[in-house]
Amino acid sequence: MVVKVYGPAYASPKRVITCLVEKEIEYEVVHVNLFKGENTTPQYLQLQPFGVLPVIQDGDYTLYESRAIIRYYAEKYKTQGTELLGRTVEERGLVEQWLEVEAHNFHPPLDDLVIHVLFDGKKGVTPDEKRIKEDEEKLARVLDVYEQRLSTSKYLAGDSFSLADLSHLPFGHYLVTSLGKEYMIRERKHVSRWWDDISNRPSWKKVLHLYPPPV
Amino acid sequence: MVVKVYGPAYASPKRVITCLVEKEIEYEVVHVNLFKGENTTPQYLQLQPFGVLPVIQDGDYTLYESRAIIRYYAEKYKTQGTELLGRTVEERGLVEQWLEVEAHNFHPPLDDLVIHVLFDGKKGVTPDEKRIKEDEEKLARVLDVYEQRLSTSKYLAGDSFSLADLSHLPFGHYLVTSLGKEYMIRERKHVSRWWDDISNRPSWKKVLHLYPPPV
Repeated sequence: MVVKVYGPAYASPKRVITCLVEKEIEYEVVHVNLFKGENTTPQYLQLQPFGVLPVIQDGDYTLYESRAIIRYYAEKYKTQGTELLGRTVEERGLVEQWLEVEAHNFHPPLDDLVIHVLFDGKKGVTPDEKRIKEDEEKLARVLDVYEQRLSTSKYLAGDSFSLADLSHLPFGHYLVTSLGKEYMIRERKHVSRWWDDISNRPSWKKVLHLYPPPV
Repeated sequence: MVVKVYGPAYASPKRVITCLVEKEIEYEVVHVNLFKGENTTPQYLQLQPFGVLPVIQDGDYTLYESRAIIRYYAEKYKTQGTELLGRTVEERGLVEQWLEVEAHNFHPPLDDLVIHVLFDGKKGVTPDEKRIKEDEEKLARVLDVYEQRLSTSKYLAGDSFSLADLSHLPFGHYLVTSLGKEYMIRERKHVSRWWDDISNRPSWKKVLHLYPPPV
């Protein structure tokens, strides 16, 4: 059974595809164009009732929310490809903790920047400078905690690359490229070393090469 | 070993304590007063570097982020107390999906209401009516999807109560009590039936009784 992943050009589906590549799971993609509203058709809403990306179909099993999908495949194929959930229940606890930190601390200000700088920019809307500054300040505080953590730990959840690190790749990529804020990574020594490590993984380079971001 | 849970009066730590009660795990609480800034002391930041609740200590294991903690205990004590993660990897996938929906769709507008109506109100700040209206509209759209889902499924992730349902209790409680918006639940037949079911669980009633919310 080949896993079908919707919306590979966008950031959240890339979280899923990178996980599938790390786990050596066969997949195919279905392109969805958000700028043409292809995520709001009745057919799409049947699969994903909130009208967002990604969603996967695996035989008759349908699943959405990128961080749920990556947990599902990392657990289902535990012994295949890269181990991404830790070796013990305590290690998995820390993977879960840093996955949640990514979702609730790292992601929101960065997602806001992507929407209000890149996507609004593409639509010709003038970005709100005050909001951009606030987002950057929030993100800086988060990265300060990461710097501390990564000064004593190779990866966020411990000695090994895990879903917690992987989950940062798609939006971290926007930060260092289209958003022009690579300095936020580079002015923090340990974050910089970590970013180089995770963003040079063959899985991520392959996904970026195959599905270039739309902005 | 008794699990130490910080901040039981507040909503997110209640997610953790309800899970511990369902799993029949012994715990004790450490009170933290956010209104006095007890979450910003150097000692607290050692445990939780972002200065938010909750955090747990279990021997020398420290873990934060409520939804990471509940996953950890539900997995560690899989065969003890209520099964909260599903019986198969596919069932767990759906539990993960709806946990993520709670975190990314249900929680943000409701958290915004709690901060801007209840907490600002307590501090004497006038609430922003436009923002409140937008939050309510967002939440209504989410609850419409829930209504659809719960018309064909007893609980969010399937036939059994799971972490996905449990995770809605603390902020759902604010919605039907202090926020005065119980009608948002009651005007949706299936959501209403589901809310009555989950909010009447002995675990939740016990937690509410032991640790009344501060607002």
